[in-house]
Amino acid sequence: MSKAIPSRNEDYSLWYNELVKKAGLAENSPVRGCMVIKPYGFAIWEKMQQTLDKMFKDTGHSNAYFPLFIPKSFLSKEADHVEGFAKECAVVTHYRLKTDEENGGVIVDPDAKLEEELIVRPTSETVIWDSYKNWIQSYRDLPLLINQWANVVRWEMRTRLFLRTAEFLWQEGHTAHATKAEAEAETQQMLEVYAKFAEEFMAMPVTKGVKTASERFAGAVETYCIEALMQDGKALQAGTSHFLGQNFAKAFDVKFATKEGKDEFVWGTSWGVSTRLMGALIMAHSDDDGLVLPPKLAPIQVVIVPIYRKDEELAAITEVAEKFKSALQDKNISVKFDNRDTHKPGWKFAEYELKGVPVRIAIGPKDLEKGTVEIARRDTKEKQFVNQDETVDFVTNLLEEIQTNIYSKAASFTEENTRSVETYDEFKQVLEKDGGFIYAHWDGTPETEEKIKDETKATIRCIPLNSSSEEGVCIYSGKPSKGKVLFAKAY
Amino acid sequence: MSKAIPSRNEDYSLWYNELVKKAGLAENSPVRGCMVIKPYGFAIWEKMQQTLDKMFKDTGHSNAYFPLFIPKSFLSKEADHVEGFAKECAVVTHYRLKTDEENGGVIVDPDAKLEEELIVRPTSETVIWDSYKNWIQSYRDLPLLINQWANVVRWEMRTRLFLRTAEFLWQEGHTAHATKAEAEAETQQMLEVYAKFAEEFMAMPVTKGVKTASERFAGAVETYCIEALMQDGKALQAGTSHFLGQNFAKAFDVKFATKEGKDEFVWGTSWGVSTRLMGALIMAHSDDDGLVLPPKLAPIQVVIVPIYRKDEELAAITEVAEKFKSALQDKNISVKFDNRDTHKPGWKFAEYELKGVPVRIAIGPKDLEKGTVEIARRDTKEKQFVNQDETVDFVTNLLEEIQTNIYSKAASFTEENTRSVETYDEFKQVLEKDGGFIYAHWDGTPETEEKIKDETKATIRCIPLNSSSEEGVCIYSGKPSKGKVLFAKAY
Repeated sequence: MSKAIPSRNEDYSLWYNELVKKAGLAENSPVRGCMVIKPYGFAIWEKMQQTLDKMFKDTGHSNAYFPLFIPKSFLSKEADHVEGFAKECAVVTHYRLKTDEENGGVIVDPDAKLEEELIVRPTSETVIWDSYKNWIQSYRDLPLLINQWANVVRWEMRTRLFLRTAEFLWQEGHTAHATKAEAEAETQQMLEVYAKFAEEFMAMPVTKGVKTASERFAGAVETYCIEALMQDGKALQAGTSHFLGQNFAKAFDVKFATKEGKDEFVWGTSWGVSTRLMGALIMAHSDDDGLVLPPKLAPIQVVIVPIYRKDEELAAITEVAEKFKSALQDKNISVKFDNRDTHKPGWKFAEYELKGVPVRIAIGPKDLEKGTVEIARRDTKEKQFVNQDETVDFVTNLLEEIQTNIYSKAASFTEENTRSVETYDEFKQVLEKDGGFIYAHWDGTPETEEKIKDETKATIRCIPLNSSSEEGVCIYSGKPSKGKVLFAKAY
Repeated sequence: MSKAIPSRNEDYSLWYNELVKKAGLAENSPVRGCMVIKPYGFAIWEKMQQTLDKMFKDTGHSNAYFPLFIPKSFLSKEADHVEGFAKECAVVTHYRLKTDEENGGVIVDPDAKLEEELIVRPTSETVIWDSYKNWIQSYRDLPLLINQWANVVRWEMRTRLFLRTAEFLWQEGHTAHATKAEAEAETQQMLEVYAKFAEEFMAMPVTKGVKTASERFAGAVETYCIEALMQDGKALQAGTSHFLGQNFAKAFDVKFATKEGKDEFVWGTSWGVSTRLMGALIMAHSDDDGLVLPPKLAPIQVVIVPIYRKDEELAAITEVAEKFKSALQDKNISVKFDNRDTHKPGWKFAEYELKGVPVRIAIGPKDLEKGTVEIARRDTKEKQFVNQDETVDFVTNLLEEIQTNIYSKAASFTEENTRSVETYDEFKQVLEKDGGFIYAHWDGTPETEEKIKDETKATIRCIPLNSSSEEGVCIYSGKPSKGKVLFAKAY
């Protein structure tokens, strides 16, 4: 088959791009920087979406939908926010086309110019807080716990499928609270939801932390994040949860009457994850043969491939295969029986390896004789023969084992590639030789942070929440440091 | 409570607008023509979406996602299509803002002008068929059965919440087939899916038919539709399914190699329903007290309201209520126990009537003594006392009965308001006096169709699929007609 992809050692970046395309996940579209998410890629995203959506609802949130467009003037209402988002947005200036009488085709109708330009949302704080102004009058209206699933556009100059695209899909939670403590608790809660999702469903260990001022969301008081380590030793920010203080409430004049009858500004949070998680999922686990998907997010968890020459053989195999299929489906396991006669078993094996299907069952005439099947797991490539009457239980357990094993493997990798350094020389050495997460002392100033970034391309991923506040001296400036922070080169 | 809405007789249009706002379904946003779908409205839409999504998947379709933006030149590739969609679209011309040094705020950066303008998709045939060109090579790649859930923008001048908005949410199915017969069968299949959804879930009877040439989708060979009758006697087009022939295949050069090795253009379909269905759902069933929701689409199917004065009473009621709640939830019935102490029972009764919750259970101290509860159904407003040990079964059956009753009521209304006329005078009389669906003979020409529309505002909703081909003479021109067609004033 012609689906082979380069190895990770050969060219990690090309491996990623080819894998995304050849596994049928996504491709570039004719519109610069915008991707097409193909059916198989979208099926994985749907599983992520459904899982997260349930977690949001279980923590009391409701979905709603706000406009795609934001009036230009809204962006300027929060001073930091406009700085962060004005630079990279798609601007709608006209609302009609007309026939080009001279050259054929259509041209923009100059008579249909908007009075005020509209921005395609890069994020929705402004348009949502403008609504909240009308929705919130009293403490009885709080907390307001809302999420939206939407597309957003940020005009990135250098794009990569899933990791950085001009248009992407995401969810954005926007909540309003009566007190600072409640808003802070919400921010933390959603960080925990993201961490739980990453670890339990994506099988991807993450470090929870808080961003430095320079990496903070434009308009936030504090940005919390989860950071994961990819196989090439680079970090990927997998989700953020922002404590907005009263910034947007003040910008949009959102006040509420307290129980005591006083007027106060409300406290806000926002939090989001995007189709970027698809990039993280791919890079955290996959190998030179293709995707490795954690069973909990695999659209097809088990594939059954018949091995046969004659039609009678297929008929006999089909009988057994359909029995397994329905028994596994009864346990909520998604199964595909690939009985296409247009492709050979070897081609199918490679195809489902490329697509990361966790478990493959092969059944041939000899298996029928012996009452066995051949079961292969995608993560370790191990194969074994299993008695047919044990197959359903075996596969059920195997799926759980694979989920655990993929997580353990990624956790070991992260642990092995997390180092602590004491000097700048050591820092640079480790960065060049091994990459990975590096814990190091930092003096807390944006100046030092930027110099280190300029000189090494490593950024402070976060100030980890779990770090012991062991005092020391900054690797760069020698000034006092309150504790080590997490550095890495990042996506 | 201050939530009262005008009656339908008083002002049907105002009744609708106020109902949509006061029941918490949607509201206008600061962006002209774009709505905010509020949590309760979105919860109904989510139920529609989940049901339809399952029906699409059960008929073999997969979801995918294509770009929000369409290069301007794509629109012109299909001659009819550009005529239909160029007039009303949002055009992105720039990709950056910059600080306004003189006046503060931000302005469009003139240096960031796009070489080719981008259109915010009004529908996605063009950008999808551009992808299909690369996805389809051989008969093995067919059929291609894809759906996308997305937002689209059509720059409508006169907008109404859900019924006609500049941005709306929808699904658009786009399929490609090897033969004309297969594409036609797909078009019909999806029409049936829409009709089934409308009747079985929305409890809304529909007439299936084919559009006249002048009402056809721009770029389609044939447009099929389902039409429903609203309580004010106006029709609403609730879904369309288009047979595209080879039009888009030719415009985007999408060919495939047949089994016999010949190169042929593929055959296409597209089909969609939108948040407009929310408007149909509201207008088909609701009354002067608020929404009437069919149980299958109600976010809250049963609400339990405690009637109490003392805290001890609430405690005793809560025990019973929680028992019902969990027993009903075990049967997949969604239940809300509204134990808020901030609102009186009377306020809550009115609130849940406004929101269309199908079943209300009230429990007071006297009920506890007698071992009963009071059950009220939203559709007929009937109330009765039911023994507590019969409550779960009673409610389960009642929900089914309400679903059936709402449909029957709408079906009777549609039947009573469907008339057949023989002359143009009769036609105008019925239209003025009663409105509703009118069957009448038409000579098949666009000229007659347009004259009738100009003179009466009634349009041909469809040429019904089930109509007997009883010959006659056109009510307007007196020329021969092959059968009666369905006229109405429409949304």
